[in-house]
Amino acid sequence: MREVYFDYGAANPLGPEVVEAMIPYLKEQFGNPLSLHRFGDAPRQAVEDAREKVAALIEARSNEIYFTASGSEANNLAVKGVALMNRKRGNHIVVSAIEHLSVINAAQTMEKLGFEVTRVPVDKYGLVDPADVAAALREDTTLVSIMHANSEIGTIQPVAEIAKVVKDGSKAYFHTDAVATVGTIPVDVKELGVSLLSLAGNQFYGPKGTGALYIKRATRIMPLIDGGVQEAGRRAGTENVPAIVGLGVAAELAKGDVQERMAQLVPLRDRLIERLTKEIDHVYLTGHPTERLPGHVSVVVQYIEGEAMLLLLNMQGVAASSGSTCTSRALKASHVLTAIGIEPGLANGSLVLTLGRESTVEEVDYFAEVFPPIVERLRQMSPLYKAT
Amino acid sequence: MREVYFDYGAANPLGPEVVEAMIPYLKEQFGNPLSLHRFGDAPRQAVEDAREKVAALIEARSNEIYFTASGSEANNLAVKGVALMNRKRGNHIVVSAIEHLSVINAAQTMEKLGFEVTRVPVDKYGLVDPADVAAALREDTTLVSIMHANSEIGTIQPVAEIAKVVKDGSKAYFHTDAVATVGTIPVDVKELGVSLLSLAGNQFYGPKGTGALYIKRATRIMPLIDGGVQEAGRRAGTENVPAIVGLGVAAELAKGDVQERMAQLVPLRDRLIERLTKEIDHVYLTGHPTERLPGHVSVVVQYIEGEAMLLLLNMQGVAASSGSTCTSRALKASHVLTAIGIEPGLANGSLVLTLGRESTVEEVDYFAEVFPPIVERLRQMSPLYKAT
Repeated sequence: MREVYFDYGAANPLGPEVVEAMIPYLKEQFGNPLSLHRFGDAPRQAVEDAREKVAALIEARSNEIYFTASGSEANNLAVKGVALMNRKRGNHIVVSAIEHLSVINAAQTMEKLGFEVTRVPVDKYGLVDPADVAAALREDTTLVSIMHANSEIGTIQPVAEIAKVVKDGSKAYFHTDAVATVGTIPVDVKELGVSLLSLAGNQFYGPKGTGALYIKRATRIMPLIDGGVQEAGRRAGTENVPAIVGLGVAAELAKGDVQERMAQLVPLRDRLIERLTKEIDHVYLTGHPTERLPGHVSVVVQYIEGEAMLLLLNMQGVAASSGSTCTSRALKASHVLTAIGIEPGLANGSLVLTLGRESTVEEVDYFAEVFPPIVERLRQMSPLYKAT
Repeated sequence: MREVYFDYGAANPLGPEVVEAMIPYLKEQFGNPLSLHRFGDAPRQAVEDAREKVAALIEARSNEIYFTASGSEANNLAVKGVALMNRKRGNHIVVSAIEHLSVINAAQTMEKLGFEVTRVPVDKYGLVDPADVAAALREDTTLVSIMHANSEIGTIQPVAEIAKVVKDGSKAYFHTDAVATVGTIPVDVKELGVSLLSLAGNQFYGPKGTGALYIKRATRIMPLIDGGVQEAGRRAGTENVPAIVGLGVAAELAKGDVQERMAQLVPLRDRLIERLTKEIDHVYLTGHPTERLPGHVSVVVQYIEGEAMLLLLNMQGVAASSGSTCTSRALKASHVLTAIGIEPGLANGSLVLTLGRESTVEEVDYFAEVFPPIVERLRQMSPLYKAT
């Protein structure tokens, strides 16, 4: 049986160069970067080299990069840190309805602590209308957080336009969760015009346990993790040197390869979307048809229950997902699918296929062959389908 | 030249078994533990195995262990999470004057957000008097956080006694920062009687980027990092599987070896303390003479500037520290030395030597030989010393 991994969005295999670069820092170079003796020298230098590589990937300065242990931590730092630090200036936050839960729930926590949150809707493709953001802005808005791309439906937002609207209409800081885009498509913090941007290494063949928040100079933000002087006092805790080194290498590789990676993935994505939606009845693309992540295919399969679909796919050697991995075991309807107007019954049949470096046209075609019988088999068990 | 590493408190070399256990999860077992297909199975199982090993080390249940990315994160989660979640019941927090900065500064952040903080003093050995904690308790106290042992002066607190006082005199939760003790001396959450306890893997030959918070069942706490359903919804972000696996192995090894490790270190510690304080004038032990961490030697060397001392030691092949590594580059007087009544001039000559697995009596004696000429040389440059 063929083994097809179509869940790069949930986890990436690390690049071999990434692992090799990490190993010395798990072994002989174990020192603490803050130590005032030679055991600290190589680790300290390695962390700063990685910072430069991550900065280069998003066209930032290295002193604007703050390492975290995940994209979720970077998002929480951005939302809570900016809201709390600027609380005397205002207590209003704007987010989109389809943000990752690490933004949605962080905003909700701020709400519990006395802040007000406006949730901007999206259209049926998952696009935020910059005019809706403009309309949400208030005198006391201190933060607007709109993601760069959504990992469940693949839609890429017009972040530069939204950032401009925020800048023109308020004194709010603009944050974008770019966890799904950095390393996958070109990302330039200056072109986007953002004050804060989150990224995660495990989205571009870097190690788990790595993330970073870009914080533009002069942005007022409170630490999420207080303590020592690491990360210029903005994120305490002994630096995870091996992981940071791996993130740096992954960033450097991504910077060199991003165009090539897109060129590989877009045709595979489009072929898979076309075959699924044309060859099987009642299969509908979710998200935007063209403004979407290069390797991202998301559909809803009517009259099907997603978990059973994943199980049968797994038996055919295919690893896939039914949505955000962070919520896959929460067993409730995706807030993203709800926001784009998919009714709960249809949302049950959500299927997300994320392609990556090892994906091939043969795998796409294998999928397109094995999937229709699975759909057919499950639909035979569905009373709703029989009624059609 | 001999190479002597006396800075285990700042960074530990990883056990070879720890690194070997991590490697597969950096390579083929890259899946996301939340995935509903077979790539998630081994990582998910590995995380739960590690959780059981960490639980066993501190005599907890595995569902009371929540992984974090550092001891500092665990401390921030405990302090901020408990304070914020229980804010309707009260807004008073009690800490000791010598807590790690990740507790001290987290409490200070809560102060900025409207909480009141009482800082309990310590005696000249750095010991907290349980009666002082009792006196600090109020109707609206929701959290008391007193560390198990201090990494700058080595003093081990009577945590069980303090926890009892807190339980008898209030409805507050009791947290202990046990980052310096877990894996180094026996730690039993039930004997200590705590509701929350922080630990960090890099303190006992585990990887950087690992920590955990023990949260006793029924403890009300708000997440620090909101988002997905990882860690039972209490700490979002994709699990750092390789690091967690390494933490688990380190915990298992520590559980088996802790008595042996103590038996090795205590005589080395005592020999080094005796030689330093008896063979050199004006060298004073800081912290408690017997209630102290097994491998921990801390002194103040009068008429000496600490950074120059570290530099000359480094030239003699000795890696040492002048205090908490988290603050070593902050260039301000240690709040811990201030709290035990060491005046700033004397605190400048702080020296912290932390011994570990590879330390030997030959290294101790080497240190005792090379150190006096360094002291002598630096004192010759000190006008204060010449005046004596």
